Amino acid sequence: MYSFTNDYSEGAHENILNALMESNLKQSSGYGLDEYCEKAKDILKNVLKNDDIDIHFIPGGTQVNLICISSFLRQHEAAIAANTGHIAVHETGAIEACGHKVITVNSNDGKLNKEMIKNILKIHNDEHMVKPKLVYISNSTEIGTIYNKKELSDLYSFCKENNLILFIDGARMGSAITSKENDLLLSDLVNLCDAFYIGGTKNGALFGEALIICNDNLKEDFRYNIKQKGALLAKGRLLGIQFIELFKDDLFFDLAKHANDMASLIQDELINQGYKLLIKSPTNQIFPILPNKSIEKLRDKYTFNTWEEYDENHTIIRLVTSWATDKNKVISFIEDLKQI
Amino acid sequence: MYSFTNDYSEGAHENILNALMESNLKQSSGYGLDEYCEKAKDILKNVLKNDDIDIHFIPGGTQVNLICISSFLRQHEAAIAANTGHIAVHETGAIEACGHKVITVNSNDGKLNKEMIKNILKIHNDEHMVKPKLVYISNSTEIGTIYNKKELSDLYSFCKENNLILFIDGARMGSAITSKENDLLLSDLVNLCDAFYIGGTKNGALFGEALIICNDNLKEDFRYNIKQKGALLAKGRLLGIQFIELFKDDLFFDLAKHANDMASLIQDELINQGYKLLIKSPTNQIFPILPNKSIEKLRDKYTFNTWEEYDENHTIIRLVTSWATDKNKVISFIEDLKQI
Amino acid sequence: MYSFTNDYSEGAHENILNALMESNLKQSSGYGLDEYCEKAKDILKNVLKNDDIDIHFIPGGTQVNLICISSFLRQHEAAIAANTGHIAVHETGAIEACGHKVITVNSNDGKLNKEMIKNILKIHNDEHMVKPKLVYISNSTEIGTIYNKKELSDLYSFCKENNLILFIDGARMGSAITSKENDLLLSDLVNLCDAFYIGGTKNGALFGEALIICNDNLKEDFRYNIKQKGALLAKGRLLGIQFIELFKDDLFFDLAKHANDMASLIQDELINQGYKLLIKSPTNQIFPILPNKSIEKLRDKYTFNTWEEYDENHTIIRLVTSWATDKNKVISFIEDLKQI
Amino acid sequence: MYSFTNDYSEGAHENILNALMESNLKQSSGYGLDEYCEKAKDILKNVLKNDDIDIHFIPGGTQVNLICISSFLRQHEAAIAANTGHIAVHETGAIEACGHKVITVNSNDGKLNKEMIKNILKIHNDEHMVKPKLVYISNSTEIGTIYNKKELSDLYSFCKENNLILFIDGARMGSAITSKENDLLLSDLVNLCDAFYIGGTKNGALFGEALIICNDNLKEDFRYNIKQKGALLAKGRLLGIQFIELFKDDLFFDLAKHANDMASLIQDELINQGYKLLIKSPTNQIFPILPNKSIEKLRDKYTFNTWEEYDENHTIIRLVTSWATDKNKVISFIEDLKQI
Repeated sequence: MYSFTNDYSEGAHENILNALMESNLKQSSGYGLDEYCEKAKDILKNVLKNDDIDIHFIPGGTQVNLICISSFLRQHEAAIAANTGHIAVHETGAIEACGHKVITVNSNDGKLNKEMIKNILKIHNDEHMVKPKLVYISNSTEIGTIYNKKELSDLYSFCKENNLILFIDGARMGSAITSKENDLLLSDLVNLCDAFYIGGTKNGALFGEALIICNDNLKEDFRYNIKQKGALLAKGRLLGIQFIELFKDDLFFDLAKHANDMASLIQDELINQGYKLLIKSPTNQIFPILPNKSIEKLRDKYTFNTWEEYDENHTIIRLVTSWATDKNKVISFIEDLKQI
Repeated sequence: MYSFTNDYSEGAHENILNALMESNLKQSSGYGLDEYCEKAKDILKNVLKNDDIDIHFIPGGTQVNLICISSFLRQHEAAIAANTGHIAVHETGAIEACGHKVITVNSNDGKLNKEMIKNILKIHNDEHMVKPKLVYISNSTEIGTIYNKKELSDLYSFCKENNLILFIDGARMGSAITSKENDLLLSDLVNLCDAFYIGGTKNGALFGEALIICNDNLKEDFRYNIKQKGALLAKGRLLGIQFIELFKDDLFFDLAKHANDMASLIQDELINQGYKLLIKSPTNQIFPILPNKSIEKLRDKYTFNTWEEYDENHTIIRLVTSWATDKNKVISFIEDLKQI
Repeated sequence: MYSFTNDYSEGAHENILNALMESNLKQSSGYGLDEYCEKAKDILKNVLKNDDIDIHFIPGGTQVNLICISSFLRQHEAAIAANTGHIAVHETGAIEACGHKVITVNSNDGKLNKEMIKNILKIHNDEHMVKPKLVYISNSTEIGTIYNKKELSDLYSFCKENNLILFIDGARMGSAITSKENDLLLSDLVNLCDAFYIGGTKNGALFGEALIICNDNLKEDFRYNIKQKGALLAKGRLLGIQFIELFKDDLFFDLAKHANDMASLIQDELINQGYKLLIKSPTNQIFPILPNKSIEKLRDKYTFNTWEEYDENHTIIRLVTSWATDKNKVISFIEDLKQI
Repeated sequence: MYSFTNDYSEGAHENILNALMESNLKQSSGYGLDEYCEKAKDILKNVLKNDDIDIHFIPGGTQVNLICISSFLRQHEAAIAANTGHIAVHETGAIEACGHKVITVNSNDGKLNKEMIKNILKIHNDEHMVKPKLVYISNSTEIGTIYNKKELSDLYSFCKENNLILFIDGARMGSAITSKENDLLLSDLVNLCDAFYIGGTKNGALFGEALIICNDNLKEDFRYNIKQKGALLAKGRLLGIQFIELFKDDLFFDLAKHANDMASLIQDELINQGYKLLIKSPTNQIFPILPNKSIEKLRDKYTFNTWEEYDENHTIIRLVTSWATDKNKVISFIEDLKQI
């Protein structure tokens, strides 16, 4: 049985485990105030070509989302997200538990644009409604799509004009940046949003996300909020060590590219065979629409999630590849597809 | 420079790292629904001699505290803690951020007893005040002391009579259970409180706490609350793998005992030399009162925290030993103490 | 200038003011523990033909909504509401500020039915999403429609089968119960939901809502939650006095009927004149679709709110009548309509 | 039976009821956007000799406290209060329910000074603890004492130097300002704190507090927060009408002075008779220490609260007079005291 269920089915890239081994018995300060985190921050500032950013390493993505929104917003302010947005759907109301409404916008491709947000602002026009204040987007999105440079620039300009914070969930930032269709550099992001994060968990780390706060106004006292939400890891060095390895010799990008390439192999084959897709994805999550009978057969050898019912006889499934996906398994999967 | 600052200055016991290595490329389900977590739960149920408990693995201690209190209490209910209690002091208002007041009781030894709580109940007698509902204790406490079996039994009886939940923060449960003065078995705890946890972070794991919910009424939907607070680790297997190793061949107990023994060496020497202590500690945290000048000299070779000012010329310091503390360094420290 | 903007433009029915005058200098206990509140509860229990209910008087509707939801739900549980529901739209995120997500369902008539909720339950199937636990409906709804007995019975049966709490926002319960189309008795409600309230603010009181908790499981410690949210009025007697008057000689019903009748006069005329409506309303809020030019002219003499744009040349407006609406003004309005 | 239990046992001054009567059927806008509230704000700005303040009328004191703290603070920031402070004791954790810790300081006279706060700041020195940000004081305090001008000036200077917000709970501001020992003008307060309120509920209104926000940085979007917490009264005019009357011909001050005078009569007599007091109070709450037997006898004719046990045979009681206290009853009480 081989899993295409998600991109966190395996442990971590061996470089990371080796680095943990090597550093294991060295003593260091707790809570991210250690030399490894410092070094990782320096490396990231170099990659991002900017010294004037604050970097925080946080164990998980839901944590980053809830800490940022809780720290950035006043109590009556709300986040805007696509209806597919992770904070709107799959975080068990984490944002609401911090007191903030998530206003959702229906989006076919999982992305937001300024027209959608303009509409939200128009409706929310007095104190009887929450005040929209933060725009939450994901790149790549929850359905595999990505923002190009123009889309992101337009969105951020609109946000700045309207006094909105633009926050990018980058749990799968690696897959976005290494997508064939991408025209953004990781370093572009520093100028195209107020805060974003670079996901390690889904790209070869055991766990860990690197949050980059670009907007000076959002930097103050951020560590208090990390601690309050229980996300200030005692052995914070574990995060620093991992990000040092991820950004050594472009490992981060190589791992993400591998995941994308594996997904691409499958998606291209599906298109060749005439299957329809929920959406054509340029990243490591793909969403083919398959006959229910075929799905049943594939389940003999593979695990994956169903996304939603398409019609009586067809279902949209979600296949996810990762940094660790075995190309041979991908080839077998393609063979099996052909035979179904 | 050697650190006695805390018990999370190093990585993890090598067995744990090796196990992470070995399992690294095996695929597993996410979010703690994997075979490793299942196995770790079985092992713990065996150790605790009880099948009728719910076990959840959670990355950090502050998370366990806030998730439990948020899940167990209604909005108007409050926790009672010693003034030294971790939730009262060093979690940046994590409990309050979940909406609950922490009522503190002054305690000289870091422990609570039924008289203290009776007093709180007497005062909180109508709906203009919060309703005390959960008693939070730590074992070992934040100042190194431990509960013996009678104390804990008395406290739990009182709690049950008064419809209070007894919750034990076991971030340093290893040090308590392996203390020379301890008369509790780990398996006793299942019958002496409503929920408790067994800390891995401070006893040889990279991170991770095993929460045991004993009271059936507190079990429902607990995973929702873990997820909502951002503590449902994607690669939950990391927690399972670590707890399997910790409870193989009594490693957990051996590690904790080592830490206690190292602290004991230092504390005994301090007593011999006539130093006073904040309190005599039977575990891995000790609190000597030293002349400020001596402290200054020790800082040339050692790092540690100050606890609080004792008088103009003396300060209470906090020395913490760990599973990884080097006995040679302890001996050197003792030598240096003698020469000061 | 005459206002059809809402049903709280005037003060209170004179009986209420007189009763406040008469009782003014009598001393009573604070916080609703006075003889007036006791008497009002007895009267309501009589009206509702049930002694086994808990009654709480609370100054405002948003308060009742947020206190109930905060008191009834655990932190990971969510409310379901129509997209037009007051808690979903016009309470500035009050429910989210208490930590709970409001799941919205699109509804054309402002009402919920079991099919809609079944759908929500189907989607929310694991701990990565909030757990739907409370169904929030309004009667009459925010667009003037009402539930008949069968609809409400079906909905409540479904809720009970699925372990959901049914809560009815009755800010305009008077208008619902006295609607010509209504087949419910006020006393039926005790058996058709878990909690509901009877609005005074919008039906002749200065302010005040009577919350009825029918389900025993929801009764415990409710006053703690009222106090915590700042809604335990020091001079709680003001609420008791008002509800005594409202339920003396059917005043409550007479006032509501008057409001409905006034709206009916206008709506019937609009239909006669061939105007379209957003929806045909059997209560005191009506939603005609008028040419923008006509609206402009009406604004010379009347104030009212626009609901939403209908097309380039037409807008849906909202006209609200009240217990105090002057029939002469209604007749003038109708005349003015004819001439436009 | 006559009540000295509190200062909200009666209704409202007759001028207020008359004004409600007169305005009753005039239509006005909802939610405090009416001409009465506008006029009341103008009057208050005149009384306070300042146009550059924001004024909001809010039904109750607990509401003002929780809305201000929730609106003014970020999530990791905390309030500092005396151990007797209303928010710390008698609001059922309202502040914590908004996510904020209340740090308490033991104070013998119910007041805070800069030394106490300096101490708190010293202890709260990193992100593992909440960040003290707002100083909450009451004037008059919960035990009847008042701040003089120098005390308040010193405290506010310290707050400004340390980037702390000074907020004054003025539920009993009338009693403070009209105390014989007072040297503050109501208009001084605008320059001596960041926000304060003037209590109507306990000084002759049916209900209602006037919040004054002096610090520009705290003004933005405040109405959103009032609405979110359920405190934006639909018929907001009720608050405006009451404050117009309270500040017509110094009624507010006359009523408060009467309450103080009545308490003074009793307290002076108690002192004459040699009774001890918890504290000598210059306002309308007094705290005599009486033999339990005397208390029992007094309870035949009077109701009042016990404050706390003094010793086996004595109890501290709390007597409260109000704007409506009958001087004849005070004289009888004094007579009864003499005979006991």
